[in-house]
Amino acid sequence: MPKEEINNLALRRALYYPAAEIYSNSPSGFWEFADAGEKIRRKIVDLWRKELVEKEGFMEIFGAQILPEDVFKASGHLASFSDPIVQCKKCNSLHRADVLIADKTRGVVPESLATSELDALIRKHGIECPKCKGKEFHEVKKFNMMMKVDIGATGNQVSYLRPETCQSIFLDFKRVYRTMANSLPLGIAQAGSSFRNEIAPRNTLLRQREFGQMEIEIFFNPHRINEIENFSEVENFKLNLFLLKEKGVKKISCKEAVEKKLVSGKLIAYCLARVQEFYKKLNISEEKMRFRQLGNDERAFYAAETWDFEVETDLGWIELMACNYRTDYDLKGHAKQSRQEMIVTDNNEKVLPHVFELSAGIDRAFYVALDLAFRKEKRGPEERVFLDLPVRIAPYIAGIFPLVKKDGLLEKATGIFRQLNSYDFDVLFEEKASIGKRYAKTDEIGVPFAITIDYDTMKDNTVTLRERNSMQQKRVKIDSLAEALWHLKTGKKSFEKI
Amino acid sequence: MPKEEINNLALRRALYYPAAEIYSNSPSGFWEFADAGEKIRRKIVDLWRKELVEKEGFMEIFGAQILPEDVFKASGHLASFSDPIVQCKKCNSLHRADVLIADKTRGVVPESLATSELDALIRKHGIECPKCKGKEFHEVKKFNMMMKVDIGATGNQVSYLRPETCQSIFLDFKRVYRTMANSLPLGIAQAGSSFRNEIAPRNTLLRQREFGQMEIEIFFNPHRINEIENFSEVENFKLNLFLLKEKGVKKISCKEAVEKKLVSGKLIAYCLARVQEFYKKLNISEEKMRFRQLGNDERAFYAAETWDFEVETDLGWIELMACNYRTDYDLKGHAKQSRQEMIVTDNNEKVLPHVFELSAGIDRAFYVALDLAFRKEKRGPEERVFLDLPVRIAPYIAGIFPLVKKDGLLEKATGIFRQLNSYDFDVLFEEKASIGKRYAKTDEIGVPFAITIDYDTMKDNTVTLRERNSMQQKRVKIDSLAEALWHLKTGKKSFEKI
Repeated sequence: MPKEEINNLALRRALYYPAAEIYSNSPSGFWEFADAGEKIRRKIVDLWRKELVEKEGFMEIFGAQILPEDVFKASGHLASFSDPIVQCKKCNSLHRADVLIADKTRGVVPESLATSELDALIRKHGIECPKCKGKEFHEVKKFNMMMKVDIGATGNQVSYLRPETCQSIFLDFKRVYRTMANSLPLGIAQAGSSFRNEIAPRNTLLRQREFGQMEIEIFFNPHRINEIENFSEVENFKLNLFLLKEKGVKKISCKEAVEKKLVSGKLIAYCLARVQEFYKKLNISEEKMRFRQLGNDERAFYAAETWDFEVETDLGWIELMACNYRTDYDLKGHAKQSRQEMIVTDNNEKVLPHVFELSAGIDRAFYVALDLAFRKEKRGPEERVFLDLPVRIAPYIAGIFPLVKKDGLLEKATGIFRQLNSYDFDVLFEEKASIGKRYAKTDEIGVPFAITIDYDTMKDNTVTLRERNSMQQKRVKIDSLAEALWHLKTGKKSFEKI
Repeated sequence: MPKEEINNLALRRALYYPAAEIYSNSPSGFWEFADAGEKIRRKIVDLWRKELVEKEGFMEIFGAQILPEDVFKASGHLASFSDPIVQCKKCNSLHRADVLIADKTRGVVPESLATSELDALIRKHGIECPKCKGKEFHEVKKFNMMMKVDIGATGNQVSYLRPETCQSIFLDFKRVYRTMANSLPLGIAQAGSSFRNEIAPRNTLLRQREFGQMEIEIFFNPHRINEIENFSEVENFKLNLFLLKEKGVKKISCKEAVEKKLVSGKLIAYCLARVQEFYKKLNISEEKMRFRQLGNDERAFYAAETWDFEVETDLGWIELMACNYRTDYDLKGHAKQSRQEMIVTDNNEKVLPHVFELSAGIDRAFYVALDLAFRKEKRGPEERVFLDLPVRIAPYIAGIFPLVKKDGLLEKATGIFRQLNSYDFDVLFEEKASIGKRYAKTDEIGVPFAITIDYDTMKDNTVTLRERNSMQQKRVKIDSLAEALWHLKTGKKSFEKI
């Protein structure tokens, strides 16, 4: 779907909109989510938690977002986490050098280029300042993206907002391992916000300064990377691999990927299979997903092997998750800087665990989910817009609509609302406007079912259950509503079988 | 329970522990939560969402944590949000003046005291420096607690980490009202982190620099504060009110509180009733809870009427929620600073909505929930520790334990784990250690039920279901496990009735 359609819907229904938008000079790159937007976003995290964390027996943490300077000395962020920026000599505006070049050449600019190489490319392509069309720039400089916060009355405890959620996981590894795990492999996950002082935030949710991440770090014994209990479950699963030296995606089984050493071991193939299954649940089709293998000059500074999970949209291929083999980079760095021992015993062997990371963006998944779900249907002279969201990430499972407010229908509907609420369902009560308008509103925010209370309800205790996509309706007894919704929510029964 | 017991359990089971603890010089006031700790904390927020937000038809937002300077000029935080600090002349250490005085006098120090009055109290009580016992201090100064973050390449977009989650709600009111509500009263909620550069973080989770809030702002027409649809449901509900001029708590019905003008109107009495019901679900007993009425000199700078919901613990009375009648302070401030119109039409009347706020601490509720749930039982020579957490906030609903790994029991147990996981239950799989040790571990983190798979399971497809508190056991068919857990989770059936 064109991004304008998505953005219009988002603003019209408050799914997302700029932070502090009533102030005209608010910095860009900060977004807010209301009602259906907040719920869809949260349910994507819930689905990730259910499918990739809890099902695997991994543990989740909730860590501080502000961490002391030492952490980022050890992680390498203070030295290496920077973007190349360039200033126009005429209007003094600042730009990201790599973005200017990529926009002009429509190509990929490797992260590893030196500032002098970027200077050369700017001259070679005759790049102009996007603001004033000036053609003279100062030399490209590296700009660190960390956001500094001074703690304490004298501000002498220099700290930073985390640029990625995973650092707390490395810091907490030792305590979590000792108190709750005592064995490898150990997966530790965290979902939360990260902060990067981007010079050029753009594409709404795709490049923000404050953004959501859901990250999993799997600590394992590198000598046992091929000893994975459940590997047999995925060995014939076909991965969509876009290999470095290939021109398109190849479907390769996990078993083959391991045997041909396309991945460093079974653990990695297993994880990629689980990731691919997870994103299918967000309605991403097989044809529009791939794991792109990253070359030496594209990988982050800590990664020995990287697979970017990407999805094809109107904006091109969007990265949803970086799958990084971080080796012992992080634990080694923190062990050295903190002088704490991070070695553990596994299989009678002392090892410094290696880490395989699944680092996903929450807001990107949210944007892509909207993009894939957006539907516009012609129905005679009218047009219907609806979001075909999977039930698991729909904002509400059902709207509850009394046909009219009088003759006891309002009270009856309220009773049903409270009953379903007490059974832990997200239900939306709406008594204003015509039934048609109420359907239209809930269709637009992706509510899969609607329950209408009418005069028949007062006679026989049944309600109309309407499905969003097909607009089919059927009568259901109030007494069996909770169970029906439970089956629909967990996918145990389809609407037809209710 | 003594706080040492709680803190020991927290560290032993990674429920909470200091952030970046492997670095010896990490600033205090930042905490992390792992596994059961993360889950209990998150489920407290879920319960709040279910009971106080969704049941009332309120809307939730998820907003940016960094907001521009204008926001806090309008909110008054840049001018007024400060603590009095005092420096020792001998060792140069900094302290909060009000805390030093309160510790010495064991009394309450009103927020409204001028710095000169605090100077006088320090001299009068002969207060010493807690660090070096010095008796000479510099003059008390006001220290602003806002944390500044510079945004943009030149850092010229001065912004701040939010000191309370509610500011985004005021900023977003206009869009949410126009797009999704169009009527008053309108409740908007947000749960998330807030940041205050406290000089003296203390009592672990009770006074942090980064902490969780769950806030609800109810926008209403001040002329219709007594037109509340569901007031009849609470009119006989007894509030535990600790009035300003009384010495103890009085049980006063909502109706009486309104009639005697103890509250500004029905809307406020209704909210207080719902708050009291909510905290009962965290197992806080009626005898240990109260709404303390705050006097003129104790209220925050924006509040015209404040009720602090407090609970009695070993650490004294702890404030869990501030219920503030903020009038039109916030919308008026932002309307003026942003030059945006905030007036809406209600009942054919143009009004600037007033706000009643329910501002709760997440981490405080979490700490109090642990404090109230902590149990130590003598059983012969042994001692059993368990957390008597309500099912709704327990970290997992059940542990799943195969008696042994061989003879197909491990596979059987895995099947049950996956089935329950697919039905959306939080279940914990544990196959290591003796059954007794597995029970002990899950008891300590408050898991209410345990499911044991033994040799009988292989014959008749039943499992042992054990209840945490009573340690009673019964046999349950595997096929009916999901439904049984659903009833136990939603409180529709007790363990006895399963």
